[in-house]
Amino acid sequence: MQQGHTVYFKNKPKIVATGTVAGPKECAGVAGRYVDYPLGDDMFGEETFERAERKMLLTALECAVRKAKLAQSEVDAIVSGDLLNQIISASFAARETGLPFLGIYSACSTMSEALLLAAVLTDGGYAENVAAATGSHFSSAERQYRYPLELGTTRPPQSQWTVTGAGCAMVSRAGSGPVITCGTVGRVIDYGVSDVNNMGAAMAPAAADTILMHLRDTGRDPSYYDLILTGDLGALGSRLVKELTYEQGADISANHVDCGEIVYRVREDEFQGGSGAGCSAVILNSYIYDKLTGSGNIRRVLFAATGALLSTVSSGQGETIPCIAHAVAIERDAPAEAES
Amino acid sequence: MQQGHTVYFKNKPKIVATGTVAGPKECAGVAGRYVDYPLGDDMFGEETFERAERKMLLTALECAVRKAKLAQSEVDAIVSGDLLNQIISASFAARETGLPFLGIYSACSTMSEALLLAAVLTDGGYAENVAAATGSHFSSAERQYRYPLELGTTRPPQSQWTVTGAGCAMVSRAGSGPVITCGTVGRVIDYGVSDVNNMGAAMAPAAADTILMHLRDTGRDPSYYDLILTGDLGALGSRLVKELTYEQGADISANHVDCGEIVYRVREDEFQGGSGAGCSAVILNSYIYDKLTGSGNIRRVLFAATGALLSTVSSGQGETIPCIAHAVAIERDAPAEAES
Repeated sequence: MQQGHTVYFKNKPKIVATGTVAGPKECAGVAGRYVDYPLGDDMFGEETFERAERKMLLTALECAVRKAKLAQSEVDAIVSGDLLNQIISASFAARETGLPFLGIYSACSTMSEALLLAAVLTDGGYAENVAAATGSHFSSAERQYRYPLELGTTRPPQSQWTVTGAGCAMVSRAGSGPVITCGTVGRVIDYGVSDVNNMGAAMAPAAADTILMHLRDTGRDPSYYDLILTGDLGALGSRLVKELTYEQGADISANHVDCGEIVYRVREDEFQGGSGAGCSAVILNSYIYDKLTGSGNIRRVLFAATGALLSTVSSGQGETIPCIAHAVAIERDAPAEAES
Repeated sequence: MQQGHTVYFKNKPKIVATGTVAGPKECAGVAGRYVDYPLGDDMFGEETFERAERKMLLTALECAVRKAKLAQSEVDAIVSGDLLNQIISASFAARETGLPFLGIYSACSTMSEALLLAAVLTDGGYAENVAAATGSHFSSAERQYRYPLELGTTRPPQSQWTVTGAGCAMVSRAGSGPVITCGTVGRVIDYGVSDVNNMGAAMAPAAADTILMHLRDTGRDPSYYDLILTGDLGALGSRLVKELTYEQGADISANHVDCGEIVYRVREDEFQGGSGAGCSAVILNSYIYDKLTGSGNIRRVLFAATGALLSTVSSGQGETIPCIAHAVAIERDAPAEAES
């Protein structure tokens, strides 16, 4: 990359609008009042969890197009993926649009990989408007990765709760909105954790690796950012990422927030908090986007979502959990002289 | 995109080297003498199909790095995906390299999506060297998508045989090799085919859509290309794509070749030919790459691999098969005046 693992965007690719959909449990939390489509029922009028998931993704996408005041035909590409096998939510949602589609897979770091690629495509002049989107659904994730819900399996205290929700960011060359100024492409990190109920511990080293790489590449101090936002490390993983970065000389404790840690009012089975590709997609594109625009009080965010790149087959074959984190810097588009 | 769905590369991103690995059945065919690592045993010394698959992918990648005369640390990113749930082959292979990794999913069109994104990253100045790679394994695909091999299920005559093999193309700004001059991002096309044993019929409309879009966007006649190369339509799908494009006024019958149709000497259960992400990855990066370089006689190739974006869940829920094709134009880097 241009410098270390970090790519820089000179032409100010902007997040001109976002769209979000979230389930009732999610909307009872911090993001509730900022979500465009708060659902009363997480089936969203569909007959299967999978159809509800793809309908959320499509709804978030169409919402972002509308709020960006674009005709759908003005969107040059959708960059999207999700947690389901063969990313069927993204593919089937893209089918409904007739738009060019680039499928990606990065588990719960899909939102940051999508934003990074959308910024590359628009900044490089290959596209005017690119929709970066992802989502997840508690029930489809449970049945794919864990146990049938009907089994009523007890959840261990280090587990997290997959967010039912979707988010889309419209990244454009023209227009106004917070700018994606640079991005750091993560590498696959595996500290040997194999407990599929402890994703926070598995993913924290990947988050730390990318955050440290980003700070080193850019020469920035953690305090440059108002917020260093991880995706779904949960409460335990958040403690770990702070420790791992501190050990390497970067103190992020003052400005680190994890979307998974804040998404729920943890009361019952959520334990460590939220997870899933939809977790950071909803929090970033609703609550955080609001703070980055208008009268919000956040100017600079490093968004570093993490993904656990396991499958039920890899775990069944005794493999540990490889993880990754991609990061993008999102900054208010203020003239340099306005900054002290 | 800059024009329709097609993006143009001004800075001559080149395929400076390739690496390929293929199983014994594959190496008995047309590509055999061009494959870097012809395997005598498709387990590749591993205990599971999945580990053999990821070892092939890693071997192809390392081979391409070596043939490009690069240190591994000079590779700025790996863009890769595969057919297995959660693309574990690509993720676990990337883990071994410590290199920045962008995971993608586009089923059997992974090779063309990877080349397109690698060209964007290098052409746009975001990277110097990007490895585009994918692969597949007959036995891991059968057990994930179809039936356990031990069951000895009879295969219907419209079925194809998943290629055991992997291929990697090193795309670089510097160096020499055939140039990726432009690429067309596909959209998801679904003509309502739901027979999971007839992928050729499901995917042909997506191939036709992208090829027609590419010709329209670029104003080129099919005869501009020496070869219009699809990925794994097989014999039936190849007939269909020729018919579908002909109906729309583009006669590709003289120069269309399908990697799946040519990969095997069809004798037993292969029926329509080869399939899988490894099919076009092996053929393009061995046999075709040889013809595009050195004393080979091919100057211009439109490579349009197709992917069927179904999952066992989507098929089980009665959905039809959404498909996609991405295309890249690969041309010998000759000065314009040398062309008649």
